[in-house]
Amino acid sequence: MFNCTTVDDLLTEELVKELSISYGTPLYVYFERIIRERAKIVMDIFNGINIFPTFACKANNNPNLIKIMYDEGFGTDIVTLGEYHASKLAGVPDEKIVWNGNGKFLEEMAILSKVRYVNVDSFDEFERWKEIKKRPELFLRINPDVDPKTHPHISTGLKKNKFGIPLEDVKRELDKSEICNMISGFHIHIGSQITDVEPFRQAISQVVEISKKYGFSKINIGGGWGINYAEKELDIVEYKKSIVPLLRDFDQVILEIGRYIVAPSGILILRVEYVKKTSHKVFVVVNGGMNLLIRPALYNAYHGINVFESTGEKNVVDVVGPLCESGDVIAINRTIELPKVGSCMVIENVGAYGYSMSSNYNSTLRPAEVLITEEKKPRLIRRRETIEDLFRTII
Amino acid sequence: MFNCTTVDDLLTEELVKELSISYGTPLYVYFERIIRERAKIVMDIFNGINIFPTFACKANNNPNLIKIMYDEGFGTDIVTLGEYHASKLAGVPDEKIVWNGNGKFLEEMAILSKVRYVNVDSFDEFERWKEIKKRPELFLRINPDVDPKTHPHISTGLKKNKFGIPLEDVKRELDKSEICNMISGFHIHIGSQITDVEPFRQAISQVVEISKKYGFSKINIGGGWGINYAEKELDIVEYKKSIVPLLRDFDQVILEIGRYIVAPSGILILRVEYVKKTSHKVFVVVNGGMNLLIRPALYNAYHGINVFESTGEKNVVDVVGPLCESGDVIAINRTIELPKVGSCMVIENVGAYGYSMSSNYNSTLRPAEVLITEEKKPRLIRRRETIEDLFRTII
Repeated sequence: MFNCTTVDDLLTEELVKELSISYGTPLYVYFERIIRERAKIVMDIFNGINIFPTFACKANNNPNLIKIMYDEGFGTDIVTLGEYHASKLAGVPDEKIVWNGNGKFLEEMAILSKVRYVNVDSFDEFERWKEIKKRPELFLRINPDVDPKTHPHISTGLKKNKFGIPLEDVKRELDKSEICNMISGFHIHIGSQITDVEPFRQAISQVVEISKKYGFSKINIGGGWGINYAEKELDIVEYKKSIVPLLRDFDQVILEIGRYIVAPSGILILRVEYVKKTSHKVFVVVNGGMNLLIRPALYNAYHGINVFESTGEKNVVDVVGPLCESGDVIAINRTIELPKVGSCMVIENVGAYGYSMSSNYNSTLRPAEVLITEEKKPRLIRRRETIEDLFRTII
Repeated sequence: MFNCTTVDDLLTEELVKELSISYGTPLYVYFERIIRERAKIVMDIFNGINIFPTFACKANNNPNLIKIMYDEGFGTDIVTLGEYHASKLAGVPDEKIVWNGNGKFLEEMAILSKVRYVNVDSFDEFERWKEIKKRPELFLRINPDVDPKTHPHISTGLKKNKFGIPLEDVKRELDKSEICNMISGFHIHIGSQITDVEPFRQAISQVVEISKKYGFSKINIGGGWGINYAEKELDIVEYKKSIVPLLRDFDQVILEIGRYIVAPSGILILRVEYVKKTSHKVFVVVNGGMNLLIRPALYNAYHGINVFESTGEKNVVDVVGPLCESGDVIAINRTIELPKVGSCMVIENVGAYGYSMSSNYNSTLRPAEVLITEEKKPRLIRRRETIEDLFRTII
């Protein structure tokens, strides 16, 4: 619907081959052009609104990518000291940082009280902030009990979810003027990978209403925009039409967005180790699995797959990793042209929650990350781990 | 049924407090005494059998723990170069190492061909070994299509699973004498955390039968023994009675076991950050979640919980971590005495697939590991990560 570059426009067999030779596999690759284009699209949607956009570092904490987002006008949405550090490595100033999360530790509060905004997850947390003299602007996170129709692990705005304060509890407490005077507004975030506009409308309109009732001129609408993993993505034209008008009267609208911008910018290059045919099934064994990309195992997530050197034979396959666990899958029952052993396969839409959720399970090494710059030059932005890295903390 | 020490016998409020002060939290703690006792129990079961026991490093790759297992007579079962390296750091010689896995890379084969045994996962892999002159003894992994009645992610011996070669395919190929002359026997492993003896009997008796038919004097029976997370563990008296007699005629029986020995030896100490009460639910927020222990999120796994400083109030709670994801849980709908904020909680049975599956998600730091020696002295065996560790590979 928007004329946005995709990985398919930029990816060639030659580039994949060249990258796999220069940097080895498995390899995460990100396209700067896609990140910048999508960042601009997000900004455009809020045209006419005083938007304070932040990039959710949990999606990808590589400071080189955060720096691109900062250059596009984004601050950061952080959860931990580690993400604060990533923001600092990217040059993001404290006044562009929002601190989020349901479990802020006292030690962290001592250090991170210098950021601009904090989303307060509970009244207990609020009590702690009261004790801190020089504190950030506080936003109460409301749990609106709206079903975002996404995977249960990444739905966050249902009353059974750990996040935020139920609307009725907020209303009851707000009569204590003390809270009203100490906060700058409300925050809401109902989940991740949401592809329908309606849950956003339901949730945001509730928060807009209560914000206006209590006279707050700032609002934090969270993020959660869904991308096209398998069939559809969030209709941003509809979002603009349905959501943006609700926000016109605010002096500032804070936005927290990660996946929508970086997920489609990233691919994972894997090498085909075996094409194993049994009398029951065909398995394409690649050199990385749930250690590098846990989304298929954890959320039963779908990721597009590109075969670059095909044998010509078509079949239904499981694409699996080399780890000793049946959950170690990249794709299940996928009809593809069988790849040649030793060739590369590309997994799509892994720029968010790919590397950031990776592990060293089975004592594997985490891969390198490469950025393809706007000048189409590859640049190493995170080196591959070594076996020495793996055991560096052993005593 | 066996008189085996448990964590409950060794854990006191004082010890937890002392460890949390000395080493900080989150903290993984292992009891050497439990590891040694359980290793001896395993050996006892195979009394009269020439057993070649190996420790599955994927359960826990800390060389200090592997060393204890080696001292108890165990070699290692490895999947990767990383696990080989862990074995070497623990002093395990090549002749005590078994190499397992469905995706052995050519580069690894060049280095790891010096180990004692290899479980060959496919005929394609077999073809590769044929090309290597000085090679380990080869075992063909049979997929017996037996349902181990465990979590689908850790069931490995069904025909839909990626592991091994279906029995009918093996029988068909074995008539090619070439294979028969080049292998030392068969391997089987039907899954992990299996608490019924019957699936073991079904699977192992199939492999015993085909081994005898083709005159092999060695057999690898894998592992997969289930522990008592929630209600029952594998009945090892029944296992001894039902399985061990099948193995009497073999010159050597190779065993691969991880969880059964180390899982019950390990605990995770977490600090209570918040006890958040909403009008719908109570959440106990601790300072670690799916980043440290992904089993509840990934397998819906149950882990016992100990509260050490209670407020006296009992309630149904979710114990959740501080990460920005609803899947970030330790326990769901658990009735416990509410802990005091700032006190420690202990999560049980985390010695296997705890640290080894941990990640830096949300830019968190991986915790330290401490061993309580037989002399009841704590010893740091892996230091806590620092923020510098987290970004050390950034370029």
